[in-house]
Amino acid sequence: MKLFQDKISSAASRVRIALALKGLDVEREAIGILGPDALNRKPEYLQLNPQGLVPALLTDEGVLLTQSLAIIEYLDERYPEPPLLPGKLEDRAFARTVALAIAADIHPLLPPRVTAHLGMIGVKAEDIAEWSRHWIRVGLTAVEELLARRQTGQYVAGDAPSMADICLFPQAINAERAGLPLDQWPRIAAVVARLREIPAFADNGPAPRS
Amino acid sequence: MKLFQDKISSAASRVRIALALKGLDVEREAIGILGPDALNRKPEYLQLNPQGLVPALLTDEGVLLTQSLAIIEYLDERYPEPPLLPGKLEDRAFARTVALAIAADIHPLLPPRVTAHLGMIGVKAEDIAEWSRHWIRVGLTAVEELLARRQTGQYVAGDAPSMADICLFPQAINAERAGLPLDQWPRIAAVVARLREIPAFADNGPAPRS
Repeated sequence: MKLFQDKISSAASRVRIALALKGLDVEREAIGILGPDALNRKPEYLQLNPQGLVPALLTDEGVLLTQSLAIIEYLDERYPEPPLLPGKLEDRAFARTVALAIAADIHPLLPPRVTAHLGMIGVKAEDIAEWSRHWIRVGLTAVEELLARRQTGQYVAGDAPSMADICLFPQAINAERAGLPLDQWPRIAAVVARLREIPAFADNGPAPRS
Repeated sequence: MKLFQDKISSAASRVRIALALKGLDVEREAIGILGPDALNRKPEYLQLNPQGLVPALLTDEGVLLTQSLAIIEYLDERYPEPPLLPGKLEDRAFARTVALAIAADIHPLLPPRVTAHLGMIGVKAEDIAEWSRHWIRVGLTAVEELLARRQTGQYVAGDAPSMADICLFPQAINAERAGLPLDQWPRIAAVVARLREIPAFADNGPAPRS
């Protein structure tokens, strides 16, 4: 397998964490996603993946998989140990709910292509920064409420890290970088503190943009 | 089971389609999501689901599930027939990839809470409409490219409708309503034409906003 990724991408961070939890050591290729012509830098990557987005995982069978959560579900089905979802149906749903509350309700509003587009339609730089903080704040508050109602163990969905923790960790790091201290969400802060003790998480977070 | 939903929500439409494909007839309760105080209208719903978003599915065990894709994965694990994902691992990943290319790359940029927020930060109404068209255009073009590379059957991921078709159908209907004819994406147009022949899809699309 080969992972196409970027060090600042939190979606790529999710896949790196999943691979590390599974103990899978794969070749990595860096694809720049910042800067006006970032997506033009690697024509051979655009040939393989016309959208140019990261992460993408090339399987041993030569199939290119995209979308971080689809890649993580694939890894979990193909390499079942350790599982990235709990066993009980309702708990599996809860892990996926929190993963999507981040991957579909927060992160899509924040990537470079979106913030760049806001600038193109005339939104000022300080309003773009506040836009990002707004959606992180709304989204993590929702996650905190989900945890208050359903959390039963050390991590988001039980006593082992799951797909939900994999999505939470990079988003929490980026929240702190955006000037939003995690202590306003005590359950999230406690889970993230535990995740920082796990090398698969600590070694694979997103790098800062600057 | 009981489904909390709104007739205009395309995320709720996905769950209605999944339930119909599974032949599950569940009680439905309408939750208004439009208008300035839409989320304040049902305090008893906010008690159950503090975010106030739809869809939400209350299981027979009294667990409230949120996030449409998490609900659909739950339904597929709990009621396996007919399956909403193909059998082969790479094909399952492809179905999830297309589902997420819509549910995580297009739809999160379009819902009322996002377009209302754009207005609050000073983006003009005509620019908000073009914002929506832009992300639908970019996103469906990406889906068309994915289909060109990986489609092997009548539907997105094989010869049976999957989670991918469930996400595509409401998004395609809303694209047409936004003034984007589907014939610019011939593979999508062909799949959607086939889906329109299936009552589970035709009867459960999103209603227009007006």
